[in-house]
Formats: sequence, C-alpha cells, structure tokens
Amino acid sequence: MIALSATIARAADGLPAWNEGAAKRSIVAFVVAVTKVGGPSFVPPAERIATFDNDGTLWAEQPLYFQMAFAIDRVKALAPQHPEWKTKEPFASVLRGDLKAVAAQGEKGAVALIAATHTGTTTEEFARVVVDWMAAARHPTTKRPYTDMVYTPMLELLAYLRANGFKTFIVSGGGIEFMRPWVEKVYGIPPEQVVGSYGKLQWEMQAGRPVLRKLPDIGLVDDGPGKPVGIQTFIGRRPIAAFGNSDGDLQMLQWTAAGSGARLCLYVHHTDAAREWAYDRTSSIGRLDKGLDEAKVRGWTIVSVKDDWKQVFAFAK
Amino acid sequence: MIALSATIARAADGLPAWNEGAAKRSIVAFVVAVTKVGGPSFVPPAERIATFDNDGTLWAEQPLYFQMAFAIDRVKALAPQHPEWKTKEPFASVLRGDLKAVAAQGEKGAVALIAATHTGTTTEEFARVVVDWMAAARHPTTKRPYTDMVYTPMLELLAYLRANGFKTFIVSGGGIEFMRPWVEKVYGIPPEQVVGSYGKLQWEMQAGRPVLRKLPDIGLVDDGPGKPVGIQTFIGRRPIAAFGNSDGDLQMLQWTAAGSGARLCLYVHHTDAAREWAYDRTSSIGRLDKGLDEAKVRGWTIVSVKDDWKQVFAFAK
Repeated sequence: MIALSATIARAADGLPAWNEGAAKRSIVAFVVAVTKVGGPSFVPPAERIATFDNDGTLWAEQPLYFQMAFAIDRVKALAPQHPEWKTKEPFASVLRGDLKAVAAQGEKGAVALIAATHTGTTTEEFARVVVDWMAAARHPTTKRPYTDMVYTPMLELLAYLRANGFKTFIVSGGGIEFMRPWVEKVYGIPPEQVVGSYGKLQWEMQAGRPVLRKLPDIGLVDDGPGKPVGIQTFIGRRPIAAFGNSDGDLQMLQWTAAGSGARLCLYVHHTDAAREWAYDRTSSIGRLDKGLDEAKVRGWTIVSVKDDWKQVFAFAK
Repeated sequence: MIALSATIARAADGLPAWNEGAAKRSIVAFVVAVTKVGGPSFVPPAERIATFDNDGTLWAEQPLYFQMAFAIDRVKALAPQHPEWKTKEPFASVLRGDLKAVAAQGEKGAVALIAATHTGTTTEEFARVVVDWMAAARHPTTKRPYTDMVYTPMLELLAYLRANGFKTFIVSGGGIEFMRPWVEKVYGIPPEQVVGSYGKLQWEMQAGRPVLRKLPDIGLVDDGPGKPVGIQTFIGRRPIAAFGNSDGDLQMLQWTAAGSGARLCLYVHHTDAAREWAYDRTSSIGRLDKGLDEAKVRGWTIVSVKDDWKQVFAFAK
C-alpha cells in the first residue's frame, strides 16, 4: 500500500535531476508498469530486485578507479614497513608516482596492489582503514571527498525505486569490504545488499576474541560474467532492473534481460566532458563498447550524461 | 513506528507454542530491550540482524540431514545414466540401501554424493529438481513432506522477530541452491537472506540464452568457522541474535556474542524423544557437545524441546 501510493506520488516528481526525455520516460514507464496492481506487468514487491554497478554508475571512476586511489595511498602509507617495494613492481612505480607505469602493468599489477593493501588485516581493522581514508582523501581533480563524487540523478533513482517497493543492490567489481563501510550512509544501501569482489576470510581467535582475517585468495571477481555469478550466489533471484556503464556490466544486463516479464536494462553513457568525463569505446577505465552496441540493438535505455542529467554532482549546482 | 507498536502488541502473545519459562523470558526480554526507543540497549532496525541455522534449528535433521535424503534419491534417479555407480563407493552403498555404510564413509562420502547430485546442471534446472523432490518426497518415519518437519515455535520466533523490525537470515551448512527454492514459502525468508554452502558457478550461453552452470568446486562450506565467514561475506554486519543447535553453530554464536551491546545467543537442545528426537553429545548428526558446555558457562539461552516447546510440529497438535 505504501509502495502503491508512493508510485502515484513519486512518478512525476521523484527524478528532478533528470531532464525530460526518452531515458527518464523509460524508467518511469517501467516502474509504473511493474507496480500497477492487477496490471499485465505487475511484479510482487519481493521480486522487485534492482542491481546497480558502482564505479561509473553510482559514483565517478575517473581519472582512476577510486579503490585504486585507495590502494595507492595504502602503498605509500605501508611503504616504511616494506623497504623491498622500492625496487619491486608495481610498488616501485606507485612510490615514484608514475601511475602510467602502474596502469601499463595491467590486471597483474592491479591484483598485486590489491593483495598487498587489502589483505592480512582483520575485517574490522580494514573497515577502519577505509573509513579513515574516505574521510581524509580527496579526488585529484575536484579536490572533493570521494563520497561527494556520487551522481545526484542516480541517488534519486535509488530512492525512487525504493519508494516503489524495490530492493536496491550494488553489484560491483569493487571490493565488498571496501564498499560496505560507507555505502549505507551515501546510497542508503545496507551492507547485506552489497555484492562485489571478495577474498577468502579466515576465522581466528585473537586473545580469546574471534576475528576474521582477510586472505589473499580471491573468492570472486565480480565483473563481467562474475556479476551474474555474484547475483545468483548472493541474491539468488534474477533482477528485473539492472544499471551499469561499461562492458563489465554487460552480462549482468543480459542476465536481467533473459528473465520473463517487464525488464529495465540501462546504461549510463559518459558523454559530458564539461561537467564530468566523456569516454566509452576506447577507455581503459569503464570501457563501453560491446555493451553500447548491444544496448542499441536490443533497445535498452541509454542515458547520455550530457543530455539526460540536469545535474551531475550535488556540489556543482 | 510499525516495529515499535508491534513490540508492545506481540511481546505477550507472539509465541503461543512456547511454554512459559526461562528460555521464552530471555527471548522476550532481549527483544523488548533492543526495540525500546531511548533505552540503554536500543538497536536501530537496520542493525537488527538475526541468523538462524536451518538443520535441527528451523526444521528437523533426523534420522538423516534432509539434503542427504535428497542426494540419495538423486543417486537412485540418476543411476541408469551411471552404470559405474554399481561398484563405486559411496554410490554402491546408496543403491544397496545401506545407509550405515554411506555414513561410515564420513565427509568424503558425503562430498562425493553432493558433487554427483548437485553439480553439472544449470541453477534453473537444479531449482526445478529441488521443487519436484520437495513435493514428492516423504520423511522416512513421519511420512510427511519434509517441509512439514519445521518447528512451530521457531516459525513463531521468526515472525516475532520480524514484527519487531528484525531482518531474519538463514545461515546453514546446507546448500544455498537447495534451500532457496522453498524457504521463502516455508519460513518467509527471501532468497537474498539465505546464507549457506555453495559451489562455484560458470556463466554460459545456451542457444543464445545465458545460464549459470553448477561446478563441483566448493566456494564455502558454511559450517563451524565457515558460518562467521559466510555472515561477513554475505551480510557484512554482525548479528545481534543467533540461533543454532549444534557444535557447527558454535562459531556463529561466538561471533555474535563478541559484538558490543545486547546479544541473544540461543541453542535448541533436542531433548524430546517422544515428540521428536533426543540427541546431543554423541550424535553423528547435529552433535551438541562443546557448544552445550560453552552455552552453560556463558549463560546463553538453552531451549529444551521437551520443556520449552508446547508444540513441536504443526501436524502433531
């Protein structure tokens, strides 16, 4: 009943940072259809699962994934305890500030950085490190806290869906333990609705108190085909709406689209170099190439940041 | 507000299948304490996480784990396609109906049975097999569907906690894909609140449609120390209440107890051979030995089925 009256109340005014246009219309039409009791596309609230990529979909991801910025800062902070890093890659490049050399080392370099900076501690220690970093770190170009780099229209979309009985999940290539300490406050998404990449954990007793230690072994890389795997493992129900911005989200959108009944598959297309960044087919971060082709062929919703968003960030009115 | 008024309304009458006694009093006192706005033990609704073991806690587990009964029936159903099973253990013993010989093969035998009967199919095919089996299979002694073998007092407890703003999770050694097709209907717990053992999944395109294939590789054995690992990985927030019945739940209860603030750690102790089964320290299924000692030392709630439950199963008034 709350969801139903909210539909009527919020359909028109729930998305003020969105320009009127095809993208906004497709979102509202979908929400109205699946919440209309007795309608042909009605979906019971328990099945209103919406999954959101994080990097480049809910918050920005340029000029580098924010979790990579965290890893780089951690390397610097931990370097005094690791004199061998001065001559060992990818750490040496990080310490010299040569991020191009780090990027040139590709996934192997990134995995080494993540392993060195995201494992070994207990989950509680790691959460504190993340919270402290999030409070102190600033984005390299906007000089804003990273949690300011969230997209206002997407925050509205999260709230609009929840007001219409949806359960909103993050399904991100980012690390679960990196996201959970702050996403509830920023997105209103509780930790149990965060799916992401994760490592194995080890139960230990530390002076009679149990802790969970973060091991370097990877449990899941929640990207590309790993996203539907993460969805099935963590949520166990196919989403009816999925939101992404890159080829790494394509399988999540395909998995969502393959269910029966009304579906909303949406790509954020970064087209606004003035207010944000413009990148797609050739970007090393958040590449959108195959996904863009498939979205066009299948008639998925494509959001042009430049044309469809009245506002991008809350700090830039 | 709904949760608050429900507290007052339901504290007294929400647990009619529970006898008045220390166990029921400890449950109600805990719920009243953590839901009392402004009280010293108040917990915001978002943090009211309650985790329940399944086998022996929410439903029965004798004379054998019900998922093992499923695996045995699957071996019989699949045997025509596996002539080699006639001479290969543990399959040969299963096909001869010699369950003692199967049990004697211990965990290794169980793992082989699970791998042969729970993997290779897609997740959708497996869910259909589970649903069909659940509809047709009958418990060996009560001749009831397995989903009738759920404990009425525990169903009341789930509903009572939810009415008081708790989010109820299953955290079971049982398989995620085995539980999710039926737990929502039986327990009111949606699939995304089911934590359990799981195997790896593989994304595949089948005639242009994506499927997820169940692989034999184990992702997590959600038992013993695996339970806090599953809780941290899937939920990412420490429970304030945890319910189990065996030593396999001990680490979950320890993890729950190690948080700050009010906690409810509860063991169901199977003491009623007349209405159910009586077993604890020496049982091969659901052994409760170390856990019982620790519960007594730490003052955790111990529910005696015989003394604390007015009714055990709905079919046996």
